[in-house]
Amino acid sequence: LAKTGDHLGIWLIGAAGNVATTVAVGLAALRRGLTAPIGLLTESPICRNLGLSPLSRITLGGHEIARRTVLATAEELHTQSGIFGESLLRQVRPDLKKLQSAIRPGIKAGHGVRPAIEQCRRDLRQFAKSRGLSRMVMINLASTEPLLRVGKQRKWSDLERALAKSGEAAIPPSTAYAIAAIQENIPYVNFTPSLGANHPAVLDLAAQHNVPVMGADAKTGETLLKSVLAPMFDARRLDVMSWTGTNILGNRDGQTLREPRARAAKLRGKDQALSMLLSENAQTHTAIDFVGSMHDWKTAWDHIHFRGFLDTKMTLQFIWQGCDSALAAPLVIDLARLADLHAQLGRGGVMSHLACFFKSPMDADSHRFFEQMQILQKYLDSARAERRR
Amino acid sequence: LAKTGDHLGIWLIGAAGNVATTVAVGLAALRRGLTAPIGLLTESPICRNLGLSPLSRITLGGHEIARRTVLATAEELHTQSGIFGESLLRQVRPDLKKLQSAIRPGIKAGHGVRPAIEQCRRDLRQFAKSRGLSRMVMINLASTEPLLRVGKQRKWSDLERALAKSGEAAIPPSTAYAIAAIQENIPYVNFTPSLGANHPAVLDLAAQHNVPVMGADAKTGETLLKSVLAPMFDARRLDVMSWTGTNILGNRDGQTLREPRARAAKLRGKDQALSMLLSENAQTHTAIDFVGSMHDWKTAWDHIHFRGFLDTKMTLQFIWQGCDSALAAPLVIDLARLADLHAQLGRGGVMSHLACFFKSPMDADSHRFFEQMQILQKYLDSARAERRR
Amino acid sequence: LAKTGDHLGIWLIGAAGNVATTVAVGLAALRRGLTAPIGLLTESPICRNLGLSPLSRITLGGHEIARRTVLATAEELHTQSGIFGESLLRQVRPDLKKLQSAIRPGIKAGHGVRPAIEQCRRDLRQFAKSRGLSRMVMINLASTEPLLRVGKQRKWSDLERALAKSGEAAIPPSTAYAIAAIQENIPYVNFTPSLGANHPAVLDLAAQHNVPVMGADAKTGETLLKSVLAPMFDARRLDVMSWTGTNILGNRDGQTLREPRARAAKLRGKDQALSMLLSENAQTHTAIDFVGSMHDWKTAWDHIHFRGFLDTKMTLQFIWQGCDSALAAPLVIDLARLADLHAQLGRGGVMSHLACFFKSPMDADSHRFFEQMQILQKYLDSARAERRR
Amino acid sequence: LAKTGDHLGIWLIGAAGNVATTVAVGLAALRRGLTAPIGLLTESPICRNLGLSPLSRITLGGHEIARRTVLATAEELHTQSGIFGESLLRQVRPDLKKLQSAIRPGIKAGHGVRPAIEQCRRDLRQFAKSRGLSRMVMINLASTEPLLRVGKQRKWSDLERALAKSGEAAIPPSTAYAIAAIQENIPYVNFTPSLGANHPAVLDLAAQHNVPVMGADAKTGETLLKSVLAPMFDARRLDVMSWTGTNILGNRDGQTLREPRARAAKLRGKDQALSMLLSENAQTHTAIDFVGSMHDWKTAWDHIHFRGFLDTKMTLQFIWQGCDSALAAPLVIDLARLADLHAQLGRGGVMSHLACFFKSPMDADSHRFFEQMQILQKYLDSARAERRR
Repeated sequence: LAKTGDHLGIWLIGAAGNVATTVAVGLAALRRGLTAPIGLLTESPICRNLGLSPLSRITLGGHEIARRTVLATAEELHTQSGIFGESLLRQVRPDLKKLQSAIRPGIKAGHGVRPAIEQCRRDLRQFAKSRGLSRMVMINLASTEPLLRVGKQRKWSDLERALAKSGEAAIPPSTAYAIAAIQENIPYVNFTPSLGANHPAVLDLAAQHNVPVMGADAKTGETLLKSVLAPMFDARRLDVMSWTGTNILGNRDGQTLREPRARAAKLRGKDQALSMLLSENAQTHTAIDFVGSMHDWKTAWDHIHFRGFLDTKMTLQFIWQGCDSALAAPLVIDLARLADLHAQLGRGGVMSHLACFFKSPMDADSHRFFEQMQILQKYLDSARAERRR
Repeated sequence: LAKTGDHLGIWLIGAAGNVATTVAVGLAALRRGLTAPIGLLTESPICRNLGLSPLSRITLGGHEIARRTVLATAEELHTQSGIFGESLLRQVRPDLKKLQSAIRPGIKAGHGVRPAIEQCRRDLRQFAKSRGLSRMVMINLASTEPLLRVGKQRKWSDLERALAKSGEAAIPPSTAYAIAAIQENIPYVNFTPSLGANHPAVLDLAAQHNVPVMGADAKTGETLLKSVLAPMFDARRLDVMSWTGTNILGNRDGQTLREPRARAAKLRGKDQALSMLLSENAQTHTAIDFVGSMHDWKTAWDHIHFRGFLDTKMTLQFIWQGCDSALAAPLVIDLARLADLHAQLGRGGVMSHLACFFKSPMDADSHRFFEQMQILQKYLDSARAERRR
Repeated sequence: LAKTGDHLGIWLIGAAGNVATTVAVGLAALRRGLTAPIGLLTESPICRNLGLSPLSRITLGGHEIARRTVLATAEELHTQSGIFGESLLRQVRPDLKKLQSAIRPGIKAGHGVRPAIEQCRRDLRQFAKSRGLSRMVMINLASTEPLLRVGKQRKWSDLERALAKSGEAAIPPSTAYAIAAIQENIPYVNFTPSLGANHPAVLDLAAQHNVPVMGADAKTGETLLKSVLAPMFDARRLDVMSWTGTNILGNRDGQTLREPRARAAKLRGKDQALSMLLSENAQTHTAIDFVGSMHDWKTAWDHIHFRGFLDTKMTLQFIWQGCDSALAAPLVIDLARLADLHAQLGRGGVMSHLACFFKSPMDADSHRFFEQMQILQKYLDSARAERRR
Repeated sequence: LAKTGDHLGIWLIGAAGNVATTVAVGLAALRRGLTAPIGLLTESPICRNLGLSPLSRITLGGHEIARRTVLATAEELHTQSGIFGESLLRQVRPDLKKLQSAIRPGIKAGHGVRPAIEQCRRDLRQFAKSRGLSRMVMINLASTEPLLRVGKQRKWSDLERALAKSGEAAIPPSTAYAIAAIQENIPYVNFTPSLGANHPAVLDLAAQHNVPVMGADAKTGETLLKSVLAPMFDARRLDVMSWTGTNILGNRDGQTLREPRARAAKLRGKDQALSMLLSENAQTHTAIDFVGSMHDWKTAWDHIHFRGFLDTKMTLQFIWQGCDSALAAPLVIDLARLADLHAQLGRGGVMSHLACFFKSPMDADSHRFFEQMQILQKYLDSARAERRR
């Protein structure tokens, strides 16, 4: 078992984006006692005595393809979205600069995949070495990729050969990163709707290396509510006839989603979760619209039309007004620590016990949030027992 | 064990009110195949093979203090609230008349309690005899009583003596009904915030008779949502700072709640549930306002102000537009059948496994809806096993 | 001046649709004293002493291309959308049958335009003759037509020649109906976003015949609110940054709008009105989604994000839950009576004084609702004065 | 006519409160070009060429009974309510200090009224002298006073005598301030629901001195919407059956309103405005609840239940999320400049042309916002013409 004292490195894909920057600001603020660990499951009682990596021993680095810097993003989040104050920002500036110094140019879609994977692996090794890290986790926070038709290889050897042959196989950057991480024995978590490790041949590679992987698409707001409310209607035997959701948001995520194929990728997860929670007859519809003035804030309006006793039609509507980065950042930290825990327990493969964090959880039986929480709870109990031995 | 074929009598206190009338219309419509059993837990897969009393073998009767009739109430619900259509109403008229013929004058507050209990017992026996009923359940649907300071007797013998002495003890009608039911070995369920069986001496009596009792205040709408959403915030470690709820409604329930002490009784349950689900620092406030034009419809607006990572303040609001009677009626039927099941299994006392149905469940550890559902699920599994033997 | 006693015929395009049927039910119910004239401007004090055609002397007829009947539509509106009750429906049945007997097959897109216009004229004359009508008005209530690129003729003679030459000019059915009406000296009102009389050559024809015309797209709900609220923000110098609207509805109108070109036609009016009311910098977005369970009900959620003093960002949201046909029907009656008034005053051309009724009013300077109402008020005052002479 | 170059002094009652502080921050930021004049009617085209006092020549002073300072309030507004940023606050600090130095201890309820009036007059004269001000306006921003039964004197001489006799007449502080201002020939504007100048004897004094006065209770949010939306329902002949409003807020204003008599004073205005806009049958209800976590933000949820054609019941709901101080501050500046304009035109008495700014406008015929705006517009046009002469 690794020593608790050891440092954990979190390697962020999209390292100067809103979520990554908020992770950096938050970790720095927590370490300096400027804020309380609100929103962090791994700082709550159910995660006690698990030997999780302490917040003070987490080091950040990552890849980024955009020109923006962590400092500029932080400034923008402050000015436009009002997330953190000027004085807090001033105090955590050194930590943001430290992250900035650990950012390497990311993989762009359409470039040579094999050399990109190799470069990525070198970056990971260099980061671990320079910071004296014993363990790392990679988290994909990059913009949603367009839905891509990928090769059907089921074995890693076949995909490897395909990559070698064409020098250019049809895998998106998120998958290239996942391969690099797995080959370096680094757990990989996909926070976005992109493909990531969710390819049979990549899962084969993860199994071979016994490296934990998980995804896809973190459940931060509207879908979280769906996974809580849909089971309520079911428990009361109320018949949901239609469930319509409209999301408006103004950050880069929102801009990306103006691209129809990226939008399709995102909406697929949102709709899928809901349709798996409701009866076949329920009509579901989810829309996402870019509204610049919202910046990093997202408002979701959901209209749920249901029938009760004697066919009486009734309605529930909710309006969720959340700050995307502030909702996402603590989940990034939670997922990194829990993926690291899994690796430390010597386990690999799909971490389906983390389903409660995702809109489209890999290998998960249930989309019902409280069932997902119970599965996690049981896992944590058994992990704690194992840790004690 | 009683024969499945036997008839179950449901004795409704407030038998010509909106909820009772909707129970009668609904049962009649279900028996005639005019509607599907939407909203009925006891008609769903989790209640299979429990030997529950079939819907076709349920007979209704009850007490009523108001002059209204079931037919007039049904007509009013149709005209003003649009719950059921004219043609359905025409077809179920015989069943409503049958209920009307089984309604006896109810107990009024401030009259002699002992003779009232005796009269109530005679009414119950007479109903059972005239309809050839083998089993009965009493459900209190009467208007919320004002909060009352009651005697502190812990034993039934002490309360009995007090009732005899003054000829007039400080117990409200709902408690008098509960005593009558228990003395007749009839399970008692309190659907309202009134006191009912929730008095130490009455519970003592229920224990002596081994009669099941439960309450209080059925969880039909806003509080149901609270018991689902508050645990979500907790699971995500989001800090609820304030939770404000406003309910507007226009039925007799709403009119009763204009009386400050009845309002206090109602709101106590609503606020209590929420404050037990949230941290101590959360400010909670619930308001109920009578708005005549709403008739039997209730709209609840809840504003939930919470803090997330880096103290970011966010908001969830929901608007619930439900028809009170259509939400309540199936729960009445479910509770009657499940209380009858408990009695058939030879058990008595507080049915805390039915907590999921109540705002202020007696003897219940949790206000979290999905935990309450699990407890019920386990109970049903063991009851099914017992039934098979 | 025509005698007040004379009958007015209203010829409805889409005569068996939801709105036309509700017009028929409503007129019949009003005549029989079964309902009050709620929603009718022409029954309010500002329309007194204008010599408007009395409700009791209005006769309905129309064209319809669908197979549905007025009776079936009425039944469907009752059952699915709960608009009017069974007993009311029973009492007005004779009136609905009378309308049904006056319905002729409508013009289908893509068929010969000239013969269609001729047939339409014959139908109009036949209706007037058979019912002994002295005056008529045509109102287009048909499903929204796809946006069409039409010929650029500015003079009626040019369009007439084009129609004759090809035997098939690029004009949609709504315009063919408008031509027929004008040639019969019948005022034409376009209640929908379709082209109707809004073509230079058709307006030329209307001028030649001195026949009143107006449109387009009646302002019943969300856009009405926009035209009331946007001027409020302006009056308070609050800076609207974005205005996002989402409409869900489940009637035939909603189904038609699934067709992208029809949707474009509809949204153009909705967005146009708003962008003309706001500053150039405001981002506007309107969406319409078909949700079957809503039937004839429409819910609009609008999110208005605005800046105030010291750049403080604030939000107004509204949720409008309206019944489409019940909102539209009284406007149909109002428009018919007011168009008839204009004709009786001997005037023709575009009735821009009716702008308050439309999303995209022809020849109107203002989209501000209360300015539009003032223009109408002044018109009515002067019309009243003229009538007195 | 006074020279435009002269300075205007605004004397604020409640000078260190949220609104006064926001006025000071805003004026300073505008003068320094740090913000645009959003929300200021007097900086918009309709107020051009009126010779209004330029923003750069406004000087602030005032009375305050609480111990708080302008700087502390500004800091609190920044930290808790996020209204203005740290750097802006830093830059305007000198202006806030200047206001602080011009604040004098205010009048407390229950102390000797006559000496208080005298002291207040000395403070006003001293301020004018020390700052070299040619003109002043007094604006009451103090916490809402409890409803008080006041003397029925109709003439100033009677009230003066009563004040002299008892040394202690039943007038609240807001009225004492108004008397002091009028006696110093300073226009008085009551921004709150308190009594202020709205007493027959005080109006008599204002007439004698030819000093302009106006009030009461500025219309910043929910009531503004009511005065815009209620006329829309009327214009469409839709029958509002009930209008329910719930306001939650967390500032000192909210805390004051926990006191039942202050709450009654506030709600009276809110309900009055609405009931004057609707038919007699409409049921109206407005609630205000203190929710600490909201700080200076106010959320209003309004539920409007209305009937349309064929008695169809429909609903409009709105949710207004506004920052109280940011909405109020520009109106304070507008009112001061417009009251000053009136005085410069040599007029006195009730300024009913400013009705558009108030919930309970004195001497106003209409609560309809756009009618009120038209009255103001006409006034401004005639004032402009007068100024030109």
